[in-house]
Amino acid sequence: MKENVLQFGVIGLGNIGTGLVKNFIKNLDLIQSRAGIKLKLAKIADIDLRNKSHVQLDEKVYTTQASDIIDDPNIPIVVELVGGTTVAKDFIIRSIERKKKVVTANKALLAECGSEIIESLKKNPGAEVFFEASVGGGIPVIKVLREGFIGNEIQGITAIINGTANYILTEMEQRAVPFDQALQSAQEKGFAEPDPSLDIEGIDSAHKIAILGSIAFGAWIDFKKIYVEGISGITIQDIIYAKRLGYRIKLLAIARKSKKGIETRVNPALLDFHHPLSSVESSNNAVYIKGFPIGESMLYGKGAGDNPTSSAVISDIVDAAKSVKLGALATQHIFNRIDAQVDFADKMSWETRYYVRIQAEDKPGVLAGVAGIFAHHDISISSVLQQEESIDATVPVVMMTHIAREKNMISACQEIEKLDCIQGKVTIIRVLTQPS
Amino acid sequence: MKENVLQFGVIGLGNIGTGLVKNFIKNLDLIQSRAGIKLKLAKIADIDLRNKSHVQLDEKVYTTQASDIIDDPNIPIVVELVGGTTVAKDFIIRSIERKKKVVTANKALLAECGSEIIESLKKNPGAEVFFEASVGGGIPVIKVLREGFIGNEIQGITAIINGTANYILTEMEQRAVPFDQALQSAQEKGFAEPDPSLDIEGIDSAHKIAILGSIAFGAWIDFKKIYVEGISGITIQDIIYAKRLGYRIKLLAIARKSKKGIETRVNPALLDFHHPLSSVESSNNAVYIKGFPIGESMLYGKGAGDNPTSSAVISDIVDAAKSVKLGALATQHIFNRIDAQVDFADKMSWETRYYVRIQAEDKPGVLAGVAGIFAHHDISISSVLQQEESIDATVPVVMMTHIAREKNMISACQEIEKLDCIQGKVTIIRVLTQPS
Repeated sequence: MKENVLQFGVIGLGNIGTGLVKNFIKNLDLIQSRAGIKLKLAKIADIDLRNKSHVQLDEKVYTTQASDIIDDPNIPIVVELVGGTTVAKDFIIRSIERKKKVVTANKALLAECGSEIIESLKKNPGAEVFFEASVGGGIPVIKVLREGFIGNEIQGITAIINGTANYILTEMEQRAVPFDQALQSAQEKGFAEPDPSLDIEGIDSAHKIAILGSIAFGAWIDFKKIYVEGISGITIQDIIYAKRLGYRIKLLAIARKSKKGIETRVNPALLDFHHPLSSVESSNNAVYIKGFPIGESMLYGKGAGDNPTSSAVISDIVDAAKSVKLGALATQHIFNRIDAQVDFADKMSWETRYYVRIQAEDKPGVLAGVAGIFAHHDISISSVLQQEESIDATVPVVMMTHIAREKNMISACQEIEKLDCIQGKVTIIRVLTQPS
Repeated sequence: MKENVLQFGVIGLGNIGTGLVKNFIKNLDLIQSRAGIKLKLAKIADIDLRNKSHVQLDEKVYTTQASDIIDDPNIPIVVELVGGTTVAKDFIIRSIERKKKVVTANKALLAECGSEIIESLKKNPGAEVFFEASVGGGIPVIKVLREGFIGNEIQGITAIINGTANYILTEMEQRAVPFDQALQSAQEKGFAEPDPSLDIEGIDSAHKIAILGSIAFGAWIDFKKIYVEGISGITIQDIIYAKRLGYRIKLLAIARKSKKGIETRVNPALLDFHHPLSSVESSNNAVYIKGFPIGESMLYGKGAGDNPTSSAVISDIVDAAKSVKLGALATQHIFNRIDAQVDFADKMSWETRYYVRIQAEDKPGVLAGVAGIFAHHDISISSVLQQEESIDATVPVVMMTHIAREKNMISACQEIEKLDCIQGKVTIIRVLTQPS
């Protein structure tokens, strides 16, 4: 009977690792009966085993040496939950070299060193890497893209995949508090790290969209080529104006096909109230997918936390176990175009609608001057919001444009900022728009 | 090389069948490169082949005999797109007896004859039935429940899974038109059948929740035990009052665990504006899942139509092909508790909040009388909406209750209807509530 039990080891007994072990044990009967496979958590490795008491397993399960898992020929599945891009990378590469199935939640590593890992997989047939937990914790988007939507040409992915940023923007909108106060609230509630820059500056979202875009388009997206703009510049003023115009501001991660190639970017954007992503509140995540023949589809759920993440890791462990048992190689063909050249659309070629806010002197002719500059750059205004809210004899003027080219918008803003009647910089926020 | 090509046959060249064939051919290269399996559409059977011209395949692919597919030992995968519960059942059972992999979109057949099909599967090891397309067209909810959430105890599923009903309710709310007019608009736009009763009376939703609940709870849910209440009794008045109270009315299909057993029902319900299901508009579908450890999760997309449905069928064909190739038996363990006794919660034991509307004489003491009856039945009122809209000297009184027992609510309504000061029947609509 023993040969029918598949063993796995977990490297990393932090928050995520502890949650995984607890939930795996709690739901083990259910998992085994559904999978039709017996699973055994053979070893847990961490240099710091202080969380042992939370999981209460036999003492001989624990080790401080990752190699006790990686080098054990009886453990075909290695779960890497260390995080980071240093030792974790070494653990994964060594496991691949031993033809193992690796399960990881490490988005930074995949986004930044994905091509190295893929190279190593190619050299070691039989090895596989499963990474459902790397994007959107409880949202099974990797499996859906890989299998559920296997019959689709994916046209684009638009995602809210950073819970911290979404919590802050939701707080700002619903409680009318400024960015700093919303960030502080997020930190107090444990939704933001003491150093929140990875989240609020969009880096974490960029890691995740690199992974999703790579699966969707079948070619590894270079993380460094993703344009990244965070939310620290978003003001409560812009959120209020956007709301008056029928929009919410969200931090979006986008990977989509355009006439000019694949467009990959992370930026705050205005979303129409009727767009399904616009009602994603607080720390929730959602991934909106357009494809043919599915049309539009969205997956919504908890993006982080030990519980949702452990659901994703367990699903991968089961898939890895099936792969060991059957030689299924579930992940083998994900990056089928990995050797192909992928064209990235240059930022200047992007086409989208824009929200524009300027602080202008409250006198005749200002609007005409600004509108004239836009017209000269082939940018057409769809609506204007100008209200009697004079501050130091200047007024905010908010405009929404029709679809315009990024290059033209940047040139127009530079010209507008030179006008005497304009105070400070022009604020522009992109509007979520289908490529024309 | 030929043995590496897996052949499948399609029975039924109606709207869905034609869409499948077209989209399979269009995306074939993509599908094969992702799956790592070569697939061939070997035969298409229909007694009426008038759609041949839309797909333009070699003449020898077509047949009017389903048995040319079912009885061909070189075709291991049979795609049943005939629909209905008569010949389709025969085709599926015969295919199972030949140890084939069956792919079907037939929700009525699965819901009404599921246990017979499962019995047949048990007697024919190797045979499998895949049915992603039976629920929520472009929404990969079967795969997500079966694999993505394999590590979860599912606590409940709440779904908007009938596009026609949701279109009608959205029209009523957004355009303030009565039910009949919204239904007519749905029929004109092709969102409703000439005979819309399956959709608007909730039968179609009940078919689908029977399937989802069965997978979630691991035991076949008897379709006949599902309580079904449609939307034909919903008035524009109720939609407007609900909106004033911060709710939208949706036709919900629910399968959830309660203290008294599994509760399965289809009924219109009030949803808080902040609930992610409340912003599912028009003919879109969404399935909201609560589980441990995932927490809350929702899948959203197109529920019907040849394109979204073909995405689901293609995904199943690929899974079936992998199963043929590897002996994976992906679906084998879905109904792991099939022989177990499932307790269904009796309708009278349900506990939920209620929206109550009565038409009462506009005189002192009426509210006190009604409130007294509720109190006597252990039902506590959370808010009252009474406005000066006297019609024939009567006024509508709208009340929201705290969580109450169905049994008590029914008794209370019977008593209230006997009051002289009350006109007509009491309208009650359940409110989506987490079981206490």
